[in-house]
Amino acid sequence: MKYETNTLLLKRHPICVILTLFLFSMTVNSQINRVEPAYWWIGFKDTSLQLLVHHPDISLATPVINHEGVTIENIHKADSPNYMFIDLNIHASTKPGFFDIVFNQKGKETLTYKYELKQRERLAEAYQGFDSSDAIYLITPDRFANGNPENDIVETLLEKTIDRSDDYARHGGDIQGIINHLDYIDDLGFTAIWSSPLLTNNMASGSYHGYAITDYYEIDPRYGTFQDYKLLSDQMAKRGMKLIIDQVANHCGLEHWWMKDLPFKDWVNYQKNYEKNKDNWNSEITKRSNHKRTTNQDPYAASSDKDGMVKGWFVETMPDLNQRNPFMAKYIIQNSIWWIEACNLGGIRQDTYPYPDKEFMSVWAGTIMNEYPNFSIVGEEWSYNPLIIGYWQRGAKNHDGYESNLRSPMDFAMQATVVSGLNEADNWNEGLIKIYEGLANDFHYTSAQDLMVFPDNHDMSRIYTQLKGDVANTKMAVSYLLVIPRIPQIYYGTEILMDDFKNPGDHGLVRTDFPGGWDGDTVNAFTGEGLTETQKGMQYFLKQILNYRKNSKAIHNGKTVHFSPENGVYVLFRVFEDEIVMHIINKNEAPVSLELKRFKEMNVSGKTFKNIITSEELVWKDVLELTQKGSVILTTKLN
Amino acid sequence: MKYETNTLLLKRHPICVILTLFLFSMTVNSQINRVEPAYWWIGFKDTSLQLLVHHPDISLATPVINHEGVTIENIHKADSPNYMFIDLNIHASTKPGFFDIVFNQKGKETLTYKYELKQRERLAEAYQGFDSSDAIYLITPDRFANGNPENDIVETLLEKTIDRSDDYARHGGDIQGIINHLDYIDDLGFTAIWSSPLLTNNMASGSYHGYAITDYYEIDPRYGTFQDYKLLSDQMAKRGMKLIIDQVANHCGLEHWWMKDLPFKDWVNYQKNYEKNKDNWNSEITKRSNHKRTTNQDPYAASSDKDGMVKGWFVETMPDLNQRNPFMAKYIIQNSIWWIEACNLGGIRQDTYPYPDKEFMSVWAGTIMNEYPNFSIVGEEWSYNPLIIGYWQRGAKNHDGYESNLRSPMDFAMQATVVSGLNEADNWNEGLIKIYEGLANDFHYTSAQDLMVFPDNHDMSRIYTQLKGDVANTKMAVSYLLVIPRIPQIYYGTEILMDDFKNPGDHGLVRTDFPGGWDGDTVNAFTGEGLTETQKGMQYFLKQILNYRKNSKAIHNGKTVHFSPENGVYVLFRVFEDEIVMHIINKNEAPVSLELKRFKEMNVSGKTFKNIITSEELVWKDVLELTQKGSVILTTKLN
Repeated sequence: MKYETNTLLLKRHPICVILTLFLFSMTVNSQINRVEPAYWWIGFKDTSLQLLVHHPDISLATPVINHEGVTIENIHKADSPNYMFIDLNIHASTKPGFFDIVFNQKGKETLTYKYELKQRERLAEAYQGFDSSDAIYLITPDRFANGNPENDIVETLLEKTIDRSDDYARHGGDIQGIINHLDYIDDLGFTAIWSSPLLTNNMASGSYHGYAITDYYEIDPRYGTFQDYKLLSDQMAKRGMKLIIDQVANHCGLEHWWMKDLPFKDWVNYQKNYEKNKDNWNSEITKRSNHKRTTNQDPYAASSDKDGMVKGWFVETMPDLNQRNPFMAKYIIQNSIWWIEACNLGGIRQDTYPYPDKEFMSVWAGTIMNEYPNFSIVGEEWSYNPLIIGYWQRGAKNHDGYESNLRSPMDFAMQATVVSGLNEADNWNEGLIKIYEGLANDFHYTSAQDLMVFPDNHDMSRIYTQLKGDVANTKMAVSYLLVIPRIPQIYYGTEILMDDFKNPGDHGLVRTDFPGGWDGDTVNAFTGEGLTETQKGMQYFLKQILNYRKNSKAIHNGKTVHFSPENGVYVLFRVFEDEIVMHIINKNEAPVSLELKRFKEMNVSGKTFKNIITSEELVWKDVLELTQKGSVILTTKLN
Repeated sequence: MKYETNTLLLKRHPICVILTLFLFSMTVNSQINRVEPAYWWIGFKDTSLQLLVHHPDISLATPVINHEGVTIENIHKADSPNYMFIDLNIHASTKPGFFDIVFNQKGKETLTYKYELKQRERLAEAYQGFDSSDAIYLITPDRFANGNPENDIVETLLEKTIDRSDDYARHGGDIQGIINHLDYIDDLGFTAIWSSPLLTNNMASGSYHGYAITDYYEIDPRYGTFQDYKLLSDQMAKRGMKLIIDQVANHCGLEHWWMKDLPFKDWVNYQKNYEKNKDNWNSEITKRSNHKRTTNQDPYAASSDKDGMVKGWFVETMPDLNQRNPFMAKYIIQNSIWWIEACNLGGIRQDTYPYPDKEFMSVWAGTIMNEYPNFSIVGEEWSYNPLIIGYWQRGAKNHDGYESNLRSPMDFAMQATVVSGLNEADNWNEGLIKIYEGLANDFHYTSAQDLMVFPDNHDMSRIYTQLKGDVANTKMAVSYLLVIPRIPQIYYGTEILMDDFKNPGDHGLVRTDFPGGWDGDTVNAFTGEGLTETQKGMQYFLKQILNYRKNSKAIHNGKTVHFSPENGVYVLFRVFEDEIVMHIINKNEAPVSLELKRFKEMNVSGKTFKNIITSEELVWKDVLELTQKGSVILTTKLN
């Protein structure tokens, strides 16, 4: 094992960090315990780099670098003697390669760390973020497919069990499982994948969800290796697909390595409280966030409420990172850039967006977008209030001058509106009118088509369950969200009507295993084996829309025109140059004739339309017969 | 009656117009049928004036004016030969007084109209509109008090019956009734009165509500005379109170005099449809508004929906005025200015704000505010969506560049939020949190304190009914709306818990007679006779708050700080210089101890607070005992 450690240090990658740490405690080792980021690149606009060095009494050492183009600008001690932060400047002219960072210790042996500066593999502009031309498949990786049963249990981690009968235990899904089924995802018509966090969550229990990160530079060994993740990215890139990483700037997991030796007195919020009570830490002791997210906007919010929101811990097992500590801020920003650059990412999904310090989040997003001008970030603000959603979008004319630099807030408002609009009977202000008026709110957004929308996600009841098992309603919800000016995200399993009727909204249940992802599964959604006709119908429906959408400029960037709902029918058009897409939501169970003269302004009289789902053709005359409740999606060319 | 006509013409006022019209049809009369506005003033910023002249074949005549400072700039014919529009310019130097407008008719006798230009009684700046220092009493005049039984039935009008047992018939309330009870309103602590429209509604039935105006220059004779209205204004001015007129730019009543001889082909919307069917006019024929108010903001709204919204008739008995006709536009604007100037008004409440042409509304409000820089206009947009409410407020940074010039949109969102927040049990996102987050939306408004808010109004269920007969909840709703940064409006009868439980929301029932307003009423809310103790308690409660509010700079213009609800208690502070007002909503039925250390940032430790309702005093220590569900309003001085 010692040998392995030594060779690994020559070419560090994240998985080695924890191994190193592990081995360090077992051996007398004169190497540096931890340097983060483990390597870096030349050629960024920002030529500064701050290294976090963690090693016993490292603060007493003096670091020296002799490498052309690399200078030490500053050395910072922390409150713990075991940390050093080194500010480097990497001149534009620096050549890629390795160099030594030598730490001279008075009266002790000299330590050396071999640092690598890599050549960037592509232009900054080539990191193309997701946008409204994409359709994103959201995966809970533990629950999608188990491609490598070898890594199901990793003995070095705290949670060692695997139990598919327990919704809150590990099930064994992994990166290889996603790689194995890229054909399936690609064929369905998705152009991007967002997986919930794949970084190590070395927590004692409930680690499957991934949001309690204990190492920001390591793929959780139960999901695979850094190489696996890079392979996934490469395989996707070959298909023209984008990989979106799920990051968490607000909190880490309680078992994060630094929690045992915090660098500063203010590395996490309510740190004193934690340090006093950490041996008997429980939910009674934790200063929990008050979750009053509106304090971010509220001109009347009490200071104590603002503090309670930003400084409180999300849950007792997730220490709240203090981004107002400039070293923490730099650490998080560099970590994001590291993953983008190392894995050629196509986007970041940032968790719990309104919980970290918002000024920091502006700098974080701004720094990334400055380095990668075509990149995309989507932020999770779970608000049904378009005012709040709009506040977080870059370019918003905010009362307090706040500029988020965030391209894509999530549109929970639209999600909820579509659900209630379909569940409710139509009347003066309920039913389809809610959806119609919900979309009208787009006037408020800097760029509505950059909002991410979704029928559901991993944190809420499945759309099929939210819509009470009504297949037609589910199809209407999904197809509507795929044609309006948004970036759509679909949660894995939606295509086969996965549900959580047994206990609606239960997180573990929502994140049920995808059938076919495990050897021996009797139902296999990848092959269609064992699926009901209704499930196959939904899969086909989604595939037809997504594959049309993939090349539809009208849906990607077209003008939108919609007509107020009448008699249970709501019609929306997308138009780009000569392409027209017409989307009809029909809530009527009985057949109805839709008079077309109302749509005169679309100038499509006499045109031949094709039904995107059935491929049937029809000529635009006086009336369109709607034979059953559901979506109808038609398209035509104007010329 | 002929004699009367002649003398009246010397000093025209609105009531005479209809008498003149009536007499004209009976006699051979060489006077002009109708000139509007009937008189005007010198000294406006805008020196132009457009006269509408209505008389058989008047378009064939040539008008001549010989009066220093008054010039005819333009003469416009209409589509009907019986109309002429004369553009006058009134030079700044013009002297007040009468002059003749002579109409020379080829081969026919010359007609003469004696026109008056009055001296303005006060500076434009002296027209002080309502603001957040005011509390407005809203009255449905037919239902408040019958001060003059003589005018209950007016034989010249179509609806001749009076029947207090019928909620949709006339009940006899009038302007004199309001004048008689100004002491009561003033003592309660109100500083302004908004009465629903007092202009003539010569409709065959249901005329009591006032929104089907058939003469824009005449007080409905059943409410009194122009002099009565002016007297009301004068009496109020003496008390420092403001009179707010209710105007309707969107529609008139079907029996409006011009509907029998429309000046232009586009004087009202869907005019062709009307003219073809007017003899058999009914709701089936009318092109009704689609009421899709969001088309005013919606970037995706279909043109046909926009038309349907703006051009459709509000109801079949209310022709939709076409404000895109420049003569109609000028008519409406001049009419508003005429009433402000003639009656020294303190504000306009404009009905159905999103229904008229919005570009016109901007010009309308802008013109008024230009003439009266300190004036106030409140617009009725019945929307629960703060995005829409904010759009209509002047200074909003709107996506389409729209500038409404409207100082005070109505805040239906806050009204509804307070009701549901009190009716619901508290949990994660329901109950008091809704109110708290609702107020947080204030970040969106150009000026939240210029929004008008209300527990209820004449168009919705009574607040006591909305709150299910819960007196404590009603007091909490009312007091909260009176302390937050808003312009509060209270509907008559709220002070004695008037209700509509029998048929919630029924318009006629909501507008029930105020007890004591009619001779012989067994209950008299003015004197307290026959009121229950609960009613007296509410009246006392409101009076205490309003009278404190009247002089509270903290409530008028103070800084607001509120604390997120905890354990059913929601606390809000208003602070201005050394004055602090603390408002507590306590939903707990059982006594609770409110720990005060949470409010440390208010720096009031050790201060003596006075309870505004009970006058009790208490010293700020560790805990405040809340003995029962309800509002607690405390005040202190910092120095």
